[in-house]
Amino acid sequence: MRYDGKIILLICDGMADVPIKELNGKTPLEYAETPNMDELASKGATGLMDPIAPGIPPSSDTSHLAIFGYDPEKEYPGRGLFEAAGYGYRVSDDEVAFRCNFSAVKKQGDELIIIDRRAGRISGSDAETLAKELQKISDINGVEVKFIHTLEHRGFLILKGKNLSADVTDCDPHEINAPVLKSAPLESAKDFEAAQKTAKVVNEFVLKSFSILNSHPVNVERIKHGKLPANIVLPRGAGKRIDLESFEERWGMKPACIAAGPLYRGVALELGFKLIEVEGATGLPNTNIRGKFKAAINALDDYDFVFIHIKGTDNLSHSKDPKGKAEMISRIDKNLPIIMDAIKEGVTFVLTADHTTPCSRGIHSGDPVPLLIVGPHVRRDDVKHFDEISVAKGGLHRIRGKSLMHILLDATHRAPEYGLRPSSRHIRYIPKTWNALKL
Amino acid sequence: MRYDGKIILLICDGMADVPIKELNGKTPLEYAETPNMDELASKGATGLMDPIAPGIPPSSDTSHLAIFGYDPEKEYPGRGLFEAAGYGYRVSDDEVAFRCNFSAVKKQGDELIIIDRRAGRISGSDAETLAKELQKISDINGVEVKFIHTLEHRGFLILKGKNLSADVTDCDPHEINAPVLKSAPLESAKDFEAAQKTAKVVNEFVLKSFSILNSHPVNVERIKHGKLPANIVLPRGAGKRIDLESFEERWGMKPACIAAGPLYRGVALELGFKLIEVEGATGLPNTNIRGKFKAAINALDDYDFVFIHIKGTDNLSHSKDPKGKAEMISRIDKNLPIIMDAIKEGVTFVLTADHTTPCSRGIHSGDPVPLLIVGPHVRRDDVKHFDEISVAKGGLHRIRGKSLMHILLDATHRAPEYGLRPSSRHIRYIPKTWNALKL
Repeated sequence: MRYDGKIILLICDGMADVPIKELNGKTPLEYAETPNMDELASKGATGLMDPIAPGIPPSSDTSHLAIFGYDPEKEYPGRGLFEAAGYGYRVSDDEVAFRCNFSAVKKQGDELIIIDRRAGRISGSDAETLAKELQKISDINGVEVKFIHTLEHRGFLILKGKNLSADVTDCDPHEINAPVLKSAPLESAKDFEAAQKTAKVVNEFVLKSFSILNSHPVNVERIKHGKLPANIVLPRGAGKRIDLESFEERWGMKPACIAAGPLYRGVALELGFKLIEVEGATGLPNTNIRGKFKAAINALDDYDFVFIHIKGTDNLSHSKDPKGKAEMISRIDKNLPIIMDAIKEGVTFVLTADHTTPCSRGIHSGDPVPLLIVGPHVRRDDVKHFDEISVAKGGLHRIRGKSLMHILLDATHRAPEYGLRPSSRHIRYIPKTWNALKL
Repeated sequence: MRYDGKIILLICDGMADVPIKELNGKTPLEYAETPNMDELASKGATGLMDPIAPGIPPSSDTSHLAIFGYDPEKEYPGRGLFEAAGYGYRVSDDEVAFRCNFSAVKKQGDELIIIDRRAGRISGSDAETLAKELQKISDINGVEVKFIHTLEHRGFLILKGKNLSADVTDCDPHEINAPVLKSAPLESAKDFEAAQKTAKVVNEFVLKSFSILNSHPVNVERIKHGKLPANIVLPRGAGKRIDLESFEERWGMKPACIAAGPLYRGVALELGFKLIEVEGATGLPNTNIRGKFKAAINALDDYDFVFIHIKGTDNLSHSKDPKGKAEMISRIDKNLPIIMDAIKEGVTFVLTADHTTPCSRGIHSGDPVPLLIVGPHVRRDDVKHFDEISVAKGGLHRIRGKSLMHILLDATHRAPEYGLRPSSRHIRYIPKTWNALKL
């Protein structure tokens, strides 16, 4: 079989859901037309997966890390690093990166209260002009400061200097009507003084951004036209480079990534995945699903592990649109035959989500996600439908995200017998090169 | 009930499998005639068990350790210790033991390439003569060396001296067409210098074995008769004595073992099991199943925990004989009424495998194994068949090997309530003797 030993992992972001009234008590995945997912469920093994642990709502980056076989408790550099990487910025050793939003706040006493975390989804020349103003801030307390605007209300902040730390709290409270928060060192900070120094610079930057932006003509104009002002920048998710073993070093497989969302591209890049570009891949519900699947098949010739990310399912969950979500799932299903042809040729295929995003709630929940593995060496079960409820009876039962890579190594005959010692390193896969004894 | 509180654990080595084409897509366990196993499944609780963890293919010794309630990550002395013990050799504190094979290799440049890891399953006087030659090596770099031949191509190597370590890699690559490996310290070695010293002696021994055996008249003769030469000895699985709490200390039960395979006898001996000998027990598919089961029943009068090991199912898996494997499983089933009579008298009975060995693959895989527990205090489920697919819906769900002993203590009313402190030691079972307050 042409593709025996190759793996395709399809993660439909936030695809998992809960029963929704509007869908007669079905989940979007139950409600969608998914004859192909169901056929694959009949042929393979299914179950539930807690990307992190039962009841823990994963963030997208920690979930992907866990699914790729990294321990987010010990190997998480912080979201800022991935966000920056996703926009092509490689954070250097002496930098700390923060994801930022332009936001709208109002003064209340001596606090700043969130009106909208995305400043009315500001974009275009408004955002660009304001970003340029912020770029005039180049130094705070001797620390080099760079603000980089990306798309719409999004951007990131880089602090560069000695003795900085990513062990600081967010200024963004992640809620409206809450105050802008004062960044502070984490109790668990490894270098408390560095965290204190970093938090101070971040707080200073946030106050400066308010004083620059609040009275800026762009915002005066926006308010005049009934738009929300972008009168502050809120950093969150401090990230700093840590030693992360590459995916290939860890699992012995050459990985490729097909994703449009910057965060997913960033995680993949930092783990050494090759990014494959696809025309019409947008990171939105309108993405080119067919193009992504075809690109994945093409990538099988050169890569062992092809990760496809589809973001739109999550967007529709956050905007509480269960029918739109079901419709998008149906569209994903319709394109699956492209992958099913490769499964006939020996590909081991995984279909799952990185977290549950209930449309009823609009934010991530800690419910486990459905998981399907099908391939030439996978033990089947008798589940016939791919949805949250049916797969609860599957042969994989309920596993943790961190187990998935081990199961995939085993299903593609890469897993060494536990206890064997062909290599002086702790081995997760059978080594390709040997340390031969010389005569 | 006569046997209430007594436990019989039957491990059919490598019995678990995957759907096999030759068996119309059934597993050997599904294909076999197993009315008795099915009856027991109807009466008891079933599920899947990952001896180590999901996706990890266990070795036989680490799996047994885990099933007996030891943590192979922290309490694994290395296979060599168990192999030696299985042949009646008690490794002393200043010794390191290696499992060895006579193998056939060919020179290729300055490397030695594996032709057959078992030297054509050499046996008889050929093996004995060659072993005697190796026994002339008594010292390498001031370390005492002993080579001991056991059965056919098998043997073990003992190094004795100060500052030796078992934290070294294998010379056996576990694959044909791969080179003989250079033993090296594990990165995680506790005493790196000792490991370095040990690896050097092992490498020296391997090279010496090649120079002695390659041109030996026995091998010249073997080649003349179209046989593979036994021209090298390959050590693996270094083992050194560690402090292992006995099974009885840990679980409060007197254990007995009925097994013919040396490795299983060795594990049991090192944990303080009493070995019970059975006529016709061979460690092969032709073993005396009936005799083993009867001996287990007899042992119930004197022991609390009787472990029966049947090896043949694994042998047939390694030789990729699914029909033979199914036939052997049917034979095991046919003899089960002997044990079922004792279950009626209160025995708690466990049926499982130590790992999956797919006949399609011929080596261990990381798929979970089926598990059945039946006894007077065990909650039943509604699974009616004992096979990998049916038990996936069982009431035990998917557990780890390390959980089994706790479940068995509980099912025989030995488990203390969590948090109680009747004893100053960390207790796993209700103590039999009390530290009384004296007047």
